[in-house]
This record gives sequence, structure tokens and C-alpha cells, in this order.
Amino acid sequence: MAKTLEFFFDYASPYSYLACNQVEAVAQRTGAELRWRPFLLGAVFKATGNHTPTQVPQKGVYIAKDLQDWVRYLKLPTLVLPESFPINSLKANRVGLVAAEQGKVAAFSHAAYRAAFAEGKDLSDPKVLAEVARAVGLDPNKTLAHIENQEIKDALRRNTEEAVARGVFGAPTFFVGDNMFFGNDRLMFVEQALREA
Amino acid sequence: MAKTLEFFFDYASPYSYLACNQVEAVAQRTGAELRWRPFLLGAVFKATGNHTPTQVPQKGVYIAKDLQDWVRYLKLPTLVLPESFPINSLKANRVGLVAAEQGKVAAFSHAAYRAAFAEGKDLSDPKVLAEVARAVGLDPNKTLAHIENQEIKDALRRNTEEAVARGVFGAPTFFVGDNMFFGNDRLMFVEQALREA
Repeated sequence: MAKTLEFFFDYASPYSYLACNQVEAVAQRTGAELRWRPFLLGAVFKATGNHTPTQVPQKGVYIAKDLQDWVRYLKLPTLVLPESFPINSLKANRVGLVAAEQGKVAAFSHAAYRAAFAEGKDLSDPKVLAEVARAVGLDPNKTLAHIENQEIKDALRRNTEEAVARGVFGAPTFFVGDNMFFGNDRLMFVEQALREA
Repeated sequence: MAKTLEFFFDYASPYSYLACNQVEAVAQRTGAELRWRPFLLGAVFKATGNHTPTQVPQKGVYIAKDLQDWVRYLKLPTLVLPESFPINSLKANRVGLVAAEQGKVAAFSHAAYRAAFAEGKDLSDPKVLAEVARAVGLDPNKTLAHIENQEIKDALRRNTEEAVARGVFGAPTFFVGDNMFFGNDRLMFVEQALREA
């Protein structure tokens, strides 16, 4: 049976951006199939009673610094928090699902995260989403129309509800079977679990 | 000037137990002086509005699993959460300060964490504290009398207030100068900062 690495993420989450830059290599090194599963982090915070990262002011200040420590550690070019942070990522997450239908979720995810966290663009703006979609070979008009379909809205809701039901309380979260790992900083455990799967 | 690694911790914190098992090696590899700074994590949670780890039920469940992942990763013998968890660590933290006065804080910390998180003993019990104190060469009666002195109570309060003033919101937290790092899982950044200090 093929090993699967499930990656629950939200385009609003800068730690998911960090994970997005590592997770394919983990899957590749372990021969796992990577499943990109966009979900709505805000709804997860609400369902679990978890804080958003900026709700505790001291944590918000630290996170901004911590993200820069990670950028350096992972040798990423940059990480900016867009002016629109926290981002309303509802539409972006839905586009992620459309991209997945068309086999372009990896490319779209990299491009969307780059737009948000390297270029500081506002992913809640349909014009920005159209631009990112176009850049990875998705038809921008069709894509933006498609995300208004109930089927896509329901798919995002299902991912979110499934995540909460499986114990998720933040992003990024990974699953190797039923074994859950929270955070970009647990990828060494994810990799180990995949090696043993 | 000597490099200093400040280690803010609480004997109630299992992640601080994990850090306690790594932090001396980090200091040694980087030639840094390690300052053990017990503080009262509960007061920090209160002052910052941060959740305690068990306040979000899904997080509590995950943390229990995550700690076991860490035990395996760090090759520790075991980690149990005592029946008395979350532990009332007020007295233990004060004994930590007494131990520091006598140059025995490292030995006491290892022994106290082992009692709590390897043997499941209740660190709020003066008999347990006396036993741990004795095992590391502290006079148990004098130690338990000393922690009732205002000077020790104030010292713990000062550590706690200083931590909050410097941006701390949880444990363990490390400082290299003004550079703050939160969590056992950031020791690679701590080590890097010390190498560059």
C-alpha cells in the first residue's frame, strides 16, 4: 500500500508557507504520496477554542521574529507579513481545491504563498488570485467562477470539519495514517513516521 | 565578554523537562554560561492571557502524544504525566532558587524533573521535594524552611515579572542577550545565536 502524507494547510498561515517549502522534499525522500488539503484555519480556531496567533500580544510579537529565524534557517529569500494580515483566505483556499482538481495544487500553493508572504500581496483580492491562477496555468475567470459553486464550498467545509474531527487545532498539520503532527517544526517526526510506515 | 544563555523554566512544564535534557550540551558546545532561571509559568499565562496547554482539549490530547515523540527523538528513558498534572510547582520553583544559591541548580533540576516526569511523583508534596533535595546534597529541612523566606518568594516573583516584561509567554524560553526563543524545539536557533554572539 502506498504511504500517504496528508498536509492540512491554509493560505493565511505563514507557518504553512514554511511547511510548503519543505513538505515535498519529505514526501520525496520517503516515497510517500503527498495529499494537499486546504482547510479554513479560522473555522478550526473557532471550533476548538484555540487562540489565533495574534490574540496573545506577546505571542504575536514573538511569532514575527520566529518566522524570520525560520526564513534564515530554511534559506528562504524573504518573509513579509502582508498589510492585510491576518489574511482572509476563504477564496484562496477554495482556489486551492480547484487547483487540486486540475493537478496544479503544488504549483498554485507555491505561487499563492509567494504572493502573500514574499510579495505582501492581498490574497483576499480576486485580482491577486486571478493573477496567481494565471501564472500557474489555470484559467483565471473560470477558476474564480468555479469557487462560487456549492461543490467547492462544501469541499472546503468538509476538509475543515474532517480536520477538527481528527484532532486538528492549528496549521500546518500533517497526518501519517492516524498519527498527527502539528507544526512546521515537527517535520522531522513526520519523516521518521513515513520511514517506518 | 562571556556569552550567556538564559533558561527560563518551571518544574511544572514537561517541555522544560525536555529542554533541561539538552540545554547544558548547547551551552557546552558554544562555550556559553548557562543561567538557570526558574519562574512561575502559571503567573505568566495569567499575565499574558495565554492558554495553558490543557485549556484547548484537542491541544491537550496532542501534547501528550507529542511529548512521547520527543522522548523517542531525544532517546530519553520515559515521560509520564504525573497524576497531579498540571503540577502546582510554586514550592519546587522556590527550591530551584535555593539550589541555585548553593550551586546545585543543575543537579536539582535534573532530579526534580526526573521525579515528576519519569517517576510520576507529586512535586507539590513537601516530602517529595525533601527527598529530591536530599538526593542532590541539599539539607532537606533547611531547604524547605528557606523557601518560606520572603527573599526567596520575592526572587521567584522577580524572575516571573522580568520574564513577562521581556516578552515571555510560555516555557521553556531562552534568551541570548535580547534575542528570545520560545520552546524546546527552537534550541537549534539558540545554538546558532550563541555561535554568532
